[in-house]
Amino acid sequence: MNDAKIYLSESEMPQQWYNIQADLPELPAPALNPATNKPAGPDDLAAIFPMELIKQEVSTERYIPIPDDLLEIYKLWRPTPLVRAYRLEEFLETPARIYFKNESVSPAGSHKPNTAVAQAYFNMKEGNHRLATETGAGQWGSALSFATRLFDMECTVYMVKVSFRQKPFRKSLIHLWGAEIYASPSENTAFGRKVLAKDPNSLGSLGIAISEAIEDTVTHPGTKYSLGSVLNHVLLHQTIIGQEVKKQFEIIGDYPDTVIGCVGGGSNFSGLAFPFLQDKISGKKKDLQVLAIEPASSPSMTKGYYRYDYGDSAGMTPLMKMHTLGHNFMPPGIHAGGLRYHGMAPLVSLVYKLGLIEARSYHQLDTFKAGIDFARIQGIVPAPETDHAILAAIDEALKCKKTGEEKAILFNFSGHGHFDMTAYDDYLAGKLENYAYPKKLIEEAMKDVPQID
Amino acid sequence: MNDAKIYLSESEMPQQWYNIQADLPELPAPALNPATNKPAGPDDLAAIFPMELIKQEVSTERYIPIPDDLLEIYKLWRPTPLVRAYRLEEFLETPARIYFKNESVSPAGSHKPNTAVAQAYFNMKEGNHRLATETGAGQWGSALSFATRLFDMECTVYMVKVSFRQKPFRKSLIHLWGAEIYASPSENTAFGRKVLAKDPNSLGSLGIAISEAIEDTVTHPGTKYSLGSVLNHVLLHQTIIGQEVKKQFEIIGDYPDTVIGCVGGGSNFSGLAFPFLQDKISGKKKDLQVLAIEPASSPSMTKGYYRYDYGDSAGMTPLMKMHTLGHNFMPPGIHAGGLRYHGMAPLVSLVYKLGLIEARSYHQLDTFKAGIDFARIQGIVPAPETDHAILAAIDEALKCKKTGEEKAILFNFSGHGHFDMTAYDDYLAGKLENYAYPKKLIEEAMKDVPQID
Repeated sequence: MNDAKIYLSESEMPQQWYNIQADLPELPAPALNPATNKPAGPDDLAAIFPMELIKQEVSTERYIPIPDDLLEIYKLWRPTPLVRAYRLEEFLETPARIYFKNESVSPAGSHKPNTAVAQAYFNMKEGNHRLATETGAGQWGSALSFATRLFDMECTVYMVKVSFRQKPFRKSLIHLWGAEIYASPSENTAFGRKVLAKDPNSLGSLGIAISEAIEDTVTHPGTKYSLGSVLNHVLLHQTIIGQEVKKQFEIIGDYPDTVIGCVGGGSNFSGLAFPFLQDKISGKKKDLQVLAIEPASSPSMTKGYYRYDYGDSAGMTPLMKMHTLGHNFMPPGIHAGGLRYHGMAPLVSLVYKLGLIEARSYHQLDTFKAGIDFARIQGIVPAPETDHAILAAIDEALKCKKTGEEKAILFNFSGHGHFDMTAYDDYLAGKLENYAYPKKLIEEAMKDVPQID
Repeated sequence: MNDAKIYLSESEMPQQWYNIQADLPELPAPALNPATNKPAGPDDLAAIFPMELIKQEVSTERYIPIPDDLLEIYKLWRPTPLVRAYRLEEFLETPARIYFKNESVSPAGSHKPNTAVAQAYFNMKEGNHRLATETGAGQWGSALSFATRLFDMECTVYMVKVSFRQKPFRKSLIHLWGAEIYASPSENTAFGRKVLAKDPNSLGSLGIAISEAIEDTVTHPGTKYSLGSVLNHVLLHQTIIGQEVKKQFEIIGDYPDTVIGCVGGGSNFSGLAFPFLQDKISGKKKDLQVLAIEPASSPSMTKGYYRYDYGDSAGMTPLMKMHTLGHNFMPPGIHAGGLRYHGMAPLVSLVYKLGLIEARSYHQLDTFKAGIDFARIQGIVPAPETDHAILAAIDEALKCKKTGEEKAILFNFSGHGHFDMTAYDDYLAGKLENYAYPKKLIEEAMKDVPQID
């Protein structure tokens, strides 16, 4: 039996990010200035982002070099292992080969530091000493707290209130690395106060927290805003994942037939899938199946609309063409907090529209069951977000069992669940329920979306 | 710069455990039957341990083969990486090379699964379907829950009450993998009820929890007892750690001058240090410095006595010759729960008596500071127990800075702190205090220790 864990040496780590914009038959529609609805230029974005990230956002270069200093930082936890899940295969009695990329080995426990350290680095280079951001489940907030600490920068995090309460130790982790943290909606911003005035019991949403972080940014000098998903440059930084996996598959002489990631904003999915889509587009692997898995409670691709919409609730961000449930979407307090977002990354939305990927939605009870099965078979406890990808991998492996196909199935193990134990407690105690976001509420929220298309 | 992380392939994993009893100038004093004070034979132990582990306990074979099925299980997370802490070296401006063995990558987050899966395996092979155990900080209880699940066995864990309250998510993790868990002292055993009758507010201790687990064992058919540290066979299973590190140092052409581990019962320390002590004893590395670090609140080696004593509070275990604070030692509720034990492994006590290792004790505030510094520099958040080893490594590296010595310093990163965030919260909020266990209380507790020596 071959090694279950496939490592790369640090010197084999990819030295550049892969930019899928260079290979798509069309470019994503331009972001629009929310004040004018005209294409947003670099100046429109310079208030909240450093110039290097703005350049990356619109670049059409196929490869963008990773600075040496940043490569050194990546080496704190990268390259991450690709793992063959032998025990899971045996348990399922499937002829499929199941692989996962283990991004949970980073200090913050997920793929998020891949872009957090990059964003902190480019901000530091341009003299910004503080970053403001939002976080859903807390994966992103802890990643940015970790990243800013490495460059001696300050950091302020607005954490969606429902997750702030469910995951007290994510807050502790954010503190330990040195960042400030507020439960959102907070009293710390005008927008937060406005939301609280309307609904003092608001559980918050990513859209609201983004608005607060942007307001914080533009009202504090030396501060820039940082987003953990959705934007092109964020997805770009994550492509180190898929590029590593391609090298790891080369070592063992295999190649995936199916590539799977869970999607909230889309960053862990893109990081794994885009380098493989390159091969699908070029014809090297035409029949590659790529699956984006979203929760039934936040089904932006499977039930939403491909429209221009704001990235936040207040309408402060540029308008982006994307799959959306409407920026006033108010998701229920499900536990897979990292997937509770009304929109989908413009690049993921575009590759979905182009038919390069499939989307699927799952109910949370099924995903928790898959995650616990995984933990009991392979050992590692997954994040609830990751459970979505695991369930899809199991479903595909069971199809192979029926058909006899010996497919190679790859999924992104985007993060561990060490800070999500309340969710597992609730599941095991029978306190969780399935919830499919109703079409009627989507139609309602879509009325607030500007008519641009 | 060389790779920071040094990996072994799974095929390079050691295939045997190293038994230091083969190389010591004297054998540990025999364990005594607590009823007769005569040397305990296999029959005395068979009520609570399977025969294979009893054999390992008294074996003088230098190497004991690891069964193939167990090697396959180890491969779920082993070999673990050896890591050069380049950023910490830079931060300290030390000429020393600092390395750590990262045992936190196991599913349960510490070195504990190395023996948990071995104990579960040998019990399963002898037809036992259930294990009972105690746990301090929860590292061991979660490891045994994980391990028994792999072999479809049942598991019951008695968790020291102070830790049960401080670490609610360790309990969740133990549940997730499928074990039962009780806060100790509990109403579940006669001994637990007796302790509670005397002191309803008892915070518990490892000694009490061990008594409960043993009572549970002998009162339930098909059940054996499992201990996470102290005993010879437990330390034996951990020697895969140090053997891997020796191979990893060979790859990079280095060898440690100083080997450091934190000690509670002594298992992570022994796992790393014993294979290196082999070289010290043989003369291959005569001047090797080996440091065992204990908390000032539980100083069994630096302030205790080398005497025959019970392993538990009720006096149900065999008597062992070891460094002890007295089996009625009642430690304060400090947070480094895994180190709150009155005794020290007989083998660690013996190598200490023989002058092969040094012991040192640290105050908790200093160790927490070291752990947070480490997390902010290297990324990973350590367990509070591990913080003790980190502080020692920092101290030694700073000595090198003064003297200019280019020493190689190695410590065991025994576990991560993802389930210990309450302790870090309390430290950052200024709620923790130093506590040195008073000599007077030790003298008091020693009065209850039988006069055998």
